Amino acid sequence: MIELEEALEIVLSQVKVLPPERVNLLSSLGRTLAEDVYADLDIPGFDRAAMDGYAVISKDTDSASRKKPVVLEVIADVPAGYSTKKVVKSGKAVRIMTGAPLPRGADAVVMVEDTEKQEGKVKIFRRVNPEENVSFAGEDVKKGELILPQGSLIRPAEVAMLATLGKKNALVRTKPKVAIVSTGDELVEVGKTLEKGEIYDSNSFALFSQVLLSGGEPYRLGIARDKKENLLARIKEGLSYQLLILSGGVSVGDYDLVADVLREAGVKMMFWKVAVKPGKPTFFGMRKDTLVFGLPGYPVSSMVNFENLVRPAIFSMLGQRDWQRIRVKAILKETVLSGGKRKKFIRVKLVKEGDKYLAVPAPSQHSGVLKSMVWADGFLILPGEVERIEKGKEVSVELLR
Amino acid sequence: MIELEEALEIVLSQVKVLPPERVNLLSSLGRTLAEDVYADLDIPGFDRAAMDGYAVISKDTDSASRKKPVVLEVIADVPAGYSTKKVVKSGKAVRIMTGAPLPRGADAVVMVEDTEKQEGKVKIFRRVNPEENVSFAGEDVKKGELILPQGSLIRPAEVAMLATLGKKNALVRTKPKVAIVSTGDELVEVGKTLEKGEIYDSNSFALFSQVLLSGGEPYRLGIARDKKENLLARIKEGLSYQLLILSGGVSVGDYDLVADVLREAGVKMMFWKVAVKPGKPTFFGMRKDTLVFGLPGYPVSSMVNFENLVRPAIFSMLGQRDWQRIRVKAILKETVLSGGKRKKFIRVKLVKEGDKYLAVPAPSQHSGVLKSMVWADGFLILPGEVERIEKGKEVSVELLR
Repeated sequence: MIELEEALEIVLSQVKVLPPERVNLLSSLGRTLAEDVYADLDIPGFDRAAMDGYAVISKDTDSASRKKPVVLEVIADVPAGYSTKKVVKSGKAVRIMTGAPLPRGADAVVMVEDTEKQEGKVKIFRRVNPEENVSFAGEDVKKGELILPQGSLIRPAEVAMLATLGKKNALVRTKPKVAIVSTGDELVEVGKTLEKGEIYDSNSFALFSQVLLSGGEPYRLGIARDKKENLLARIKEGLSYQLLILSGGVSVGDYDLVADVLREAGVKMMFWKVAVKPGKPTFFGMRKDTLVFGLPGYPVSSMVNFENLVRPAIFSMLGQRDWQRIRVKAILKETVLSGGKRKKFIRVKLVKEGDKYLAVPAPSQHSGVLKSMVWADGFLILPGEVERIEKGKEVSVELLR
Repeated sequence: MIELEEALEIVLSQVKVLPPERVNLLSSLGRTLAEDVYADLDIPGFDRAAMDGYAVISKDTDSASRKKPVVLEVIADVPAGYSTKKVVKSGKAVRIMTGAPLPRGADAVVMVEDTEKQEGKVKIFRRVNPEENVSFAGEDVKKGELILPQGSLIRPAEVAMLATLGKKNALVRTKPKVAIVSTGDELVEVGKTLEKGEIYDSNSFALFSQVLLSGGEPYRLGIARDKKENLLARIKEGLSYQLLILSGGVSVGDYDLVADVLREAGVKMMFWKVAVKPGKPTFFGMRKDTLVFGLPGYPVSSMVNFENLVRPAIFSMLGQRDWQRIRVKAILKETVLSGGKRKKFIRVKLVKEGDKYLAVPAPSQHSGVLKSMVWADGFLILPGEVERIEKGKEVSVELLR
């Protein structure tokens, strides 16, 4: 049995970052950048009005006030998207819209709210300082600047930034193809009828969804039976993917069969017990570049160790450096007990109370009780040496969403 | 100008929850449940072994110890997925695997680790209590119980729960179809060449991505020019969707044209200025059941007011009650100033320092500086009456991801 940190280190030491592919900008959301993106233009590309109003020489407005407005001659009207070749000289002004290029000669913009239009003229009611209400070229982005480093997760802001830079597409990491095989003679596919002793296969649905959320491309290869030939066939199929997850078949009694089959399929085992609760009987192995995870059959154990080990592996294949989840401080609502020396992942719901959160543990923390994962907004993680945390204490909750 | 809370109330008062549709379970991730899901079976469906080991009558093991093991006769072997009709009587045991039905007569399971196999027999080294290592029928879910209420977001745990209940598909809310129209003569589609005074349209890409993340179905209708006919045609097209977002065309100078066109298209305006910074020039109107939002042309203003007003509208159309974002406590790294009476959304990055977070404001908070959204993990929200917050203070950051 090894510690979770050590297990994760072993997994990550085997990961290779996947090759890139080019995708349309509109399909890039949620992907990971595979190149450093530099700006090949200034943004804004020109000095421009930051407000609707009048481009002026600021000095002209020095004496302007509500009572004694300054009157300037309007020599042009520039909507956004247009520009004027006219030059603003003393006594002149150009009507200008937000985003339009500042005409030559002008050094400030008077907001339209501080003006009154007249036939061919404008009354200015307030003085402006030089550079007031002007956005200067390169104020947001400077040409040549590194804007988005490789490994960035592409969120709406990154999509917008790529568009601002004129990019039609983005170079992103290919998604790891992840095969999911459920094992067990007790498993039945949803939609069929259960016989005595049987249950529906739910782990492969959970894992499918977890792979999707982690940025991978999941494939359900179906249910393998506890027979050598059947299991071997599925495992061999799964080894053609970049990552293979076996669900179930890792408890003491099953393990011999699975271990045998994996050995026969050429998988080199690297660990098979991890000091976490739930999720102890979890194994990891490699065959060529394929990562092979064996997750416990218990639904909570399977989901928890996916989060602990498989998700970081997928992030790492995508070249993302940071898979840490946000931690939120909360007040523990019920005393929790560790019940053992393993690191424990307690499922809690966050409930807002004023400007604080309460962390409410799921009523049953048994690894067979899937309801605890439906309940959970996150995990309260108890280190192995901590035996209990009293209710009322402030704790840190690792968010699942 | 109205307060944000009032604006949101007006928006939400106009929302109708969308009709449901049935989707395959594997496509249900991220959707919203449109029905209460009750369990039509117990889970587990039968009393079962929670560990690999031997099903016994617990009383038989009372005297068992490492030194003086109890020896029982093994009368059957039950893997998961199978069951036995044999009845466990005193002096007998059944070899059993995790998940297999507990045979009649037995009331506990001895873990395999506490046993030693012998020819036809088993040595028991440790006493078990009644019910030890047994999961009882209905322990996770009771038949008839409300398991997932209408309006639940379907996460991996909900997908797994639906599978456990044997559901092949889920009744979810249809996604709101959202039309996005960028307006402005200065806008150019990515991939083309910029002329003087022009910029790339980025807002529609940001909005497209934000709609996707909020659970809507976005459609980019392209760029409308600042000409009445062109704008009217796009708006009319957009009004056939359930939600229409106009980006730009809301500043003082443009507004007359847009307001005219909207009136002509039959849109009833409900507000058009909100006391937030960035994002003041934001309007909202209705035509029949279509919600119409006019967001500012500045990229940050557009993104921020999408989050403030459009995202809650989409969540609400999906029948979700809760669109509040998680708030994280952090230590403010730099003093921030409000610069006005409007509620201010300051873009901050969260940086971990020990077990705390630092909130680091983006260097420029100008609404034209998209880099501040790329920088941001979340918003530090300054109420209108707060003029500044000193660095070193604890603040609450609303998370964007």
